[in-house]
Amino acid sequence: MKKTILALAALVLPLVAAHAQTVTKSPDGNLALTFQLAKGGVPTYSLDYKGRAVILPSRLGFYLARDKHASRGLRETDLLDGFSLKNEQTSTFDETWEPVWGETRTIRNHYNEYVATLSQPKEKREILIRFRVYDDGIGLRYEFPQQPELNYFLIKEERTEFALAGDHMAWWITADYDTQEYPIQQTRLSEIPARQKESFDKRGRLYQDGTNERQVDAVVWDNASMTPVESAVQTSLQMRSDDGLYINIHEAACINYATMHLELVGPTKFVSHLTPDATGLKGCMQTPCQTPWRTVMVSDDARDMLSSNLILNLNDPCALDDTSWIHPTKYCGVWWEMIVGKSSWNYTDQFPSVQLDNIDWMKATPNGRHGATNEKVRRYIDFAAENGLDQVLVEGWNVGWEDWANRWKRDVFDFQTPYPDFDLKALNDYAHSKGVKLLMHHETSSSAQNYERYLEKAYTLMNQYGYDAVKSGYVGDIIPRGDHHYSQSMNDHYLYCIKEAAKHHIMVNAHEATRPTGLCRTYPNLVGNESARGTEYEAFGGSNPDHTVILPFTRLQGGPMDYTPGILETQLNTWSDNTSYVRSTLVGQLALYVTLYSPLQMAADLPENYAKYMDAFQFIKDVACDWDDSRYLEAEPGDYVTVARKAKGTDNWFVGGKCDEQGHETALKLDFLDKGRKYEATIYADARDAHYKDNPKAYVITKKTVKAGQTLKLREAPGGGFAISLIAK
Amino acid sequence: MKKTILALAALVLPLVAAHAQTVTKSPDGNLALTFQLAKGGVPTYSLDYKGRAVILPSRLGFYLARDKHASRGLRETDLLDGFSLKNEQTSTFDETWEPVWGETRTIRNHYNEYVATLSQPKEKREILIRFRVYDDGIGLRYEFPQQPELNYFLIKEERTEFALAGDHMAWWITADYDTQEYPIQQTRLSEIPARQKESFDKRGRLYQDGTNERQVDAVVWDNASMTPVESAVQTSLQMRSDDGLYINIHEAACINYATMHLELVGPTKFVSHLTPDATGLKGCMQTPCQTPWRTVMVSDDARDMLSSNLILNLNDPCALDDTSWIHPTKYCGVWWEMIVGKSSWNYTDQFPSVQLDNIDWMKATPNGRHGATNEKVRRYIDFAAENGLDQVLVEGWNVGWEDWANRWKRDVFDFQTPYPDFDLKALNDYAHSKGVKLLMHHETSSSAQNYERYLEKAYTLMNQYGYDAVKSGYVGDIIPRGDHHYSQSMNDHYLYCIKEAAKHHIMVNAHEATRPTGLCRTYPNLVGNESARGTEYEAFGGSNPDHTVILPFTRLQGGPMDYTPGILETQLNTWSDNTSYVRSTLVGQLALYVTLYSPLQMAADLPENYAKYMDAFQFIKDVACDWDDSRYLEAEPGDYVTVARKAKGTDNWFVGGKCDEQGHETALKLDFLDKGRKYEATIYADARDAHYKDNPKAYVITKKTVKAGQTLKLREAPGGGFAISLIAK
Repeated sequence: MKKTILALAALVLPLVAAHAQTVTKSPDGNLALTFQLAKGGVPTYSLDYKGRAVILPSRLGFYLARDKHASRGLRETDLLDGFSLKNEQTSTFDETWEPVWGETRTIRNHYNEYVATLSQPKEKREILIRFRVYDDGIGLRYEFPQQPELNYFLIKEERTEFALAGDHMAWWITADYDTQEYPIQQTRLSEIPARQKESFDKRGRLYQDGTNERQVDAVVWDNASMTPVESAVQTSLQMRSDDGLYINIHEAACINYATMHLELVGPTKFVSHLTPDATGLKGCMQTPCQTPWRTVMVSDDARDMLSSNLILNLNDPCALDDTSWIHPTKYCGVWWEMIVGKSSWNYTDQFPSVQLDNIDWMKATPNGRHGATNEKVRRYIDFAAENGLDQVLVEGWNVGWEDWANRWKRDVFDFQTPYPDFDLKALNDYAHSKGVKLLMHHETSSSAQNYERYLEKAYTLMNQYGYDAVKSGYVGDIIPRGDHHYSQSMNDHYLYCIKEAAKHHIMVNAHEATRPTGLCRTYPNLVGNESARGTEYEAFGGSNPDHTVILPFTRLQGGPMDYTPGILETQLNTWSDNTSYVRSTLVGQLALYVTLYSPLQMAADLPENYAKYMDAFQFIKDVACDWDDSRYLEAEPGDYVTVARKAKGTDNWFVGGKCDEQGHETALKLDFLDKGRKYEATIYADARDAHYKDNPKAYVITKKTVKAGQTLKLREAPGGGFAISLIAK
Repeated sequence: MKKTILALAALVLPLVAAHAQTVTKSPDGNLALTFQLAKGGVPTYSLDYKGRAVILPSRLGFYLARDKHASRGLRETDLLDGFSLKNEQTSTFDETWEPVWGETRTIRNHYNEYVATLSQPKEKREILIRFRVYDDGIGLRYEFPQQPELNYFLIKEERTEFALAGDHMAWWITADYDTQEYPIQQTRLSEIPARQKESFDKRGRLYQDGTNERQVDAVVWDNASMTPVESAVQTSLQMRSDDGLYINIHEAACINYATMHLELVGPTKFVSHLTPDATGLKGCMQTPCQTPWRTVMVSDDARDMLSSNLILNLNDPCALDDTSWIHPTKYCGVWWEMIVGKSSWNYTDQFPSVQLDNIDWMKATPNGRHGATNEKVRRYIDFAAENGLDQVLVEGWNVGWEDWANRWKRDVFDFQTPYPDFDLKALNDYAHSKGVKLLMHHETSSSAQNYERYLEKAYTLMNQYGYDAVKSGYVGDIIPRGDHHYSQSMNDHYLYCIKEAAKHHIMVNAHEATRPTGLCRTYPNLVGNESARGTEYEAFGGSNPDHTVILPFTRLQGGPMDYTPGILETQLNTWSDNTSYVRSTLVGQLALYVTLYSPLQMAADLPENYAKYMDAFQFIKDVACDWDDSRYLEAEPGDYVTVARKAKGTDNWFVGGKCDEQGHETALKLDFLDKGRKYEATIYADARDAHYKDNPKAYVITKKTVKAGQTLKLREAPGGGFAISLIAK
């Protein structure tokens, strides 16, 4: 399936004098990475772009922890200094590979590599630092060969510094060991600590976005697991320098390692801050092993931040032999009505708490608000079948929702037993008879221990009834108790589930799991994650209108997000008691299917709401979610994103534009279309007086025939956008 | 199968005035338990035996921890005081039940019960304290009904006091969250803190028994997981008052709860000290629930400590529908030669560390010392078949032993892949052809997380090859990291394995797991535990000669121990480089098969060592390990134990006597034999000049015909004993 063009050259350099600098350039010569073993044998690196400093000399290394069983040979001395340069190696790599699904049909992986082998003579051990320099950024990682004096070690903290060259504007969320569901902040680097402090309310949550506290209380706060870290932010961190450089720090291929945060240790200098386990340790390592890649993307064109494949390229190739069962998926589901508060996940209100073994569900008194009923699921199946949607997610189908999150309760769900009003067999049969599949839901309530005990049975059940995708959830504090969502062991858990799912030909969409680092290249059955503030927050008081034009620069760097767009009835009080509203125009919601790339896209609103806007809903029916090509036409973090994508295996294009609360005007040049070919364009535009708050559902749909070379003038309302389908004639 | 005689009477008492005392007596009237709600609404209890104080008034209750999600209704106020007596209930219970295996064919469960329902009006919640008063002791437990104001709570510490009435002599091991493998200390209660301090060497291990430090270094220390607790001891704690009362504190039915230690909070007053989880919490409770039973056994006859069934009676009846597959088992195995250091668990010395996925075991270089080879296992199978042993344990059969304990290494074993020189199918086929089974070994190296991932596959593999019993091991620090061997969650893990094993008709013998509390009544496939210093320590410097005449009073209260007796070649340097020696005479080793009750008994020595003493080995071949009756004839903790047992389903008796380093003389009255019947007695006695240290293998075997009414004069050497088989004619 994959076509590979490979050119590899390796050159072993002679031993070099201490303190010598080695410079590695990107293939296009714009990026220059300098490695130097500084005074005291301290490894450092720096990075320039077109002659301008991006990363000033920054240290590399590790603080190690002393093991209680130190007698077995573990040394507690650190991997920070006392190194000498034993060997250097450079090489070039150029390969073009085909992702199983993605934004483009092929991806070029082209870099120059530099590897420094460092020995620490006093401790008789050595490590490698590997740098890959691409046109769009760099990756660096540490490698630990198996060796007599370094078989096991404990990481107290990683010390990878990122000394930025200026006090850049930054788009960030606070570091937290357990959640990424924060509103994104925009400040200069030096302002991060003060803003972080100011924006936490007394109970530790950021609120400067006008969140409705009452609803957050009821729905979010009590379920949330939060462990914020002072003066630190999460990655991917997007920055912009005053002289127009776009810089992004993230990581790639985070496997058997804790998720990295960035801690400010100077006005503009970060150092890595890993997520600890229950004992406070940040890594339990066995050689041979390596860290994830630490990545720095850089360009003077913001669009390059979005088209970059740096993170995917730094991950290993696909590990699955057979990927024929993995497919892009558009789905609807029984979900939004629970989020909004109109119906419930739980079946009964009868019990003050629930022990699964002790309840006869057939005898329980229904609360009359249960969402996942046979009747309702049938309606969703009909809706999906009528509108070409592939699957129907049903949350709240299985027993246990009466009493599920943050109780330190281990046995919350069994992932197998449906509520009395959900007929597992009949509903799957019905769906299949209509060419639709159900999409499984496994809320773990973060009891990873419980989930692992049931995993094989749960996946087997899915196979039995014909499910091929699961949305999993990790709401609440982790069990094993004391562990965190982003620790080394929990990161291993998520990957364990992905690997086990692959054996069952199951696609995974894990919510509240660790934020992605490109693992979907290696395990393409990882078709989605949440790992950010998703659409649900529009029912919890709302997200800022600029939220969705920051996410592509930050959260989406590591992999697709199950953002669940498509809320056309943006004013929730028209059909529920919820006073929150979506901070987007109706057309803005359509645009998200193009601007927020994912192979898994939800049509998140209710069928009855779509019924009111069937002409607009047509775009959601038409839009693809797998692509042969993607062109980022305009981009500015927090302001606007415009992208054109070519649907996989077709000549049809879809264009989306999304903007913040300022609105945006664009002259869309159709020069990406095939020359000389005609396209039937359907343009979904905000009406002239549309506004995300006051007039969100005012839109105009225009059809016309267009061709390459033409320019379309488009006006995006405040909090609005546009969406265009271009069907080749 | 079980014959039940049941008499139950319940009486609800009227509401009583505060501070009133309620006295509940044992069926024979000797024990008197007093419950009183003291000033301030503090629940207390006290206990008298034949009018002598055993437990002085002692408090009952709980310190609760505040939950981080306290907004969801959890109150952080404690369950210590402010109680009023809402209700009292008394009843009598009398039932005789049949254990699946045991020391006697039937067990009488006869008690008077008193239940106090206590309400804490300020917090609108209530708890129950349930007391059962038997002739041989009491049990008390807390019960928490489901109620609006008490659904979930976190235990900071349990406050169950045991105020002893005097400064008794005590046989104890130091409290430790992770191991029970300490030498047993004998001091007065008030001397515990000083002795504990003095006897810990600088690295935290008790050594006053003359342990050979070099060997402890090599074999034990680096593998051990140890977390000792100051001024605290483990249960079961055996005591003796100066006026001749024998008192024993333990617990029964420890399920979904942390193991209890006893902390000295006065010269002679203990308070409960639970094992914490990784966060320091000691219990995460969901109502309805209850604690384990806290037990106090008391008698003026030491033998009653050994014949008591208090712990079993306080456990629930058998939970398994079918127990036909559970059977007593005598086994030998490839084990002692590794413990002694002559051969190795691991197959190769080639790798400094091991990652299971990365090694081609077929290409690995054998170290030439591997124990579990096809050839050797066949020899053990032959030996078992020739001598009527049921099973052959093989340790070190599966890959991973190169690098297994205390590395914080999660994926240590896969419990499925044999070494290249162990043919799983051929060896099982060979064993079965000879009427023998192999006994599976699962060392988890305390990576419970890893074991649970493989559990179903591992048990399925056992079914596939015809294994029906597994010895599991928990050497090293627990993974999930930060957790402890005896925490609530690990106690749940052990029980989870037992329950899953039962589904596969597998018997479990778990080493280094939590010490038993009688769960084998409910789950009789739990046929053994280690949970104390076993025979292996005789190769690590030795255990005190009195060790095995304390264990029946302490460790064995909760259930059988896989002590692995039968080392006839007590001097290890006769066949190995190990300079340690067994602190017992050869005959003393035979006695242990009778004095240390277990339905699972190992003949732990090597076949070639048994070959040297085949006349003595005859007793190990003959002795039963399941019984219709047991008579404790003599007993004094730390001095001697003499017991006669009638083999199940036969008229044959076996008698064992074991003593400490002082030796012991006994006049054994054969009044337990059927009157008028003749028995062929084979008497295995220490020779006149035998001594555990200088002349351990001097023994005399005598045969004679005996009958009821006769008395046998027997002399046990220092560290010796005797063993007698009495075969009915």
